[in-house]
Amino acid sequence: MDDRTLLKTVMDIVGRDHCLDDCAIIPFGDQVMVLTTDMLHASTDFLGGMTDWQIGWMSAAVTLSDIAGMGAKPQYLLLAVGLDHWQQLAGVMQGAQNCCKKNGATIIGGDIDRHCELTVVSTGLGIVEKKYLVRRKGAKPDDLICVTGTCGQAQAFLEGYSQHKLALFEPQPRVEEGQILGRAGVSAMMDVSDGIALSLYDLLEANECGFAIESSKIPRPTGIPELQAKELALFGGGDYELIFTCAKEKHPIMGIQYTVIGKVITNHQVLIDGEILEKRGYQHQWK
Amino acid sequence: MDDRTLLKTVMDIVGRDHCLDDCAIIPFGDQVMVLTTDMLHASTDFLGGMTDWQIGWMSAAVTLSDIAGMGAKPQYLLLAVGLDHWQQLAGVMQGAQNCCKKNGATIIGGDIDRHCELTVVSTGLGIVEKKYLVRRKGAKPDDLICVTGTCGQAQAFLEGYSQHKLALFEPQPRVEEGQILGRAGVSAMMDVSDGIALSLYDLLEANECGFAIESSKIPRPTGIPELQAKELALFGGGDYELIFTCAKEKHPIMGIQYTVIGKVITNHQVLIDGEILEKRGYQHQWK
Repeated sequence: MDDRTLLKTVMDIVGRDHCLDDCAIIPFGDQVMVLTTDMLHASTDFLGGMTDWQIGWMSAAVTLSDIAGMGAKPQYLLLAVGLDHWQQLAGVMQGAQNCCKKNGATIIGGDIDRHCELTVVSTGLGIVEKKYLVRRKGAKPDDLICVTGTCGQAQAFLEGYSQHKLALFEPQPRVEEGQILGRAGVSAMMDVSDGIALSLYDLLEANECGFAIESSKIPRPTGIPELQAKELALFGGGDYELIFTCAKEKHPIMGIQYTVIGKVITNHQVLIDGEILEKRGYQHQWK
Repeated sequence: MDDRTLLKTVMDIVGRDHCLDDCAIIPFGDQVMVLTTDMLHASTDFLGGMTDWQIGWMSAAVTLSDIAGMGAKPQYLLLAVGLDHWQQLAGVMQGAQNCCKKNGATIIGGDIDRHCELTVVSTGLGIVEKKYLVRRKGAKPDDLICVTGTCGQAQAFLEGYSQHKLALFEPQPRVEEGQILGRAGVSAMMDVSDGIALSLYDLLEANECGFAIESSKIPRPTGIPELQAKELALFGGGDYELIFTCAKEKHPIMGIQYTVIGKVITNHQVLIDGEILEKRGYQHQWK
């Protein structure tokens, strides 16, 4: 059982519409509030060698990234922290606080709990003008498919490339970039936390059209053999870049670095170099 | 180390003002949004014998109770669920959904994670007119101290009184009552999740004045010897009643059942029958 299959259980109970974006969407006058929550914990997410400060930073960053993926401006964060060792709390809070401050958000509340392993759930609230909100749904045939930065670096560190350590330990959410893309009117967007391949399949789930990318165009982590680097960029998790689609006439979008990696197609499938792309990447698994 | 001491670490980093109420407070035009998050998990909160449905119900209820404690109307809930057995998800979601529906809220998002034990973090958003918001701060000398319902029932079940099982397994957040009390203009309020004694000390932390209660006036769980019943009502956790203070001339408040258990005093202390009340109740502890 994997988390994307399990999500269908949730859809059956709370409704499919509430499960198709990086954040929940709440109308708010001319604006829209977006709300998102993320659970991270020691055995899966906080690797040996991470400081408490980095754990806190990461916990805030993943949530701010979801807000960025909607084109919204992060405003507030709540942090529920389950601790096996209470001594870790100060470092975790400080890391989260620094990540929030850097990205214009404020920690306004939370909860403290004793737990069998360090567990942090961050909940974020962002705001965006209704007309600049970007959802996963909205891609149109012939739109360009684009990605910010370089995916695969976090996974590269896990495979022994120590130069990519900070990509995993201190992810930088694309908060400014998300808002620039929203104002530029990109047609669909999400963050790439589980790899480019799974993100394209998530976009497929939300759209009628399909997605065709070219392997030669995908930015790859440096200092890594060619084939492995491509594998990492497509299937590695733990990066927090933005993937988006955009009408050709809007490209190039000023004030932001991104790479065009393919285009939206009419057929409802995900292709790489003309072949079906394997649906694989970071997923939670249960026996 | 206990959670209330540890909270001071959080106050040092994010500011004391963000830590003094059941919910965080966000200005929202003539209204105020309140936001709160709660972490519950198997080894501490979900007792043997609870169904998945009851686990979900409880997870939503504790958060809705925090919103009720501010006089606000619950609107939205996010649920982050960490699962050791994926099969539990459907029951948990259904229980949370039913609790939300009963109390006028909607589940609009969440996260699914694999975890070493079942862990549910519910985050709730409520709305209230600014003039009807009630905080922990605001009690004035000579105000009445009042409590809804009967505290100690959840703890009574833990001590072998099986007739009180539903009090623990299916707590009913005082959502309607909280809004009635807010509109009635009570001066301070919070929910009593960790017992009356600790709640009075939480109110003490937020106010300049003090609190004097009379043991004979405190409602007690039924079918239990007198002394034990008093102990449970004062120090037992797991109930989700509301404790509030209210100017004498506003009493009685129509449309709601509550009991006057004492009055607000000038001295900054918590008294029972004229003696200092022991500061004890449900707290998370770390070695």
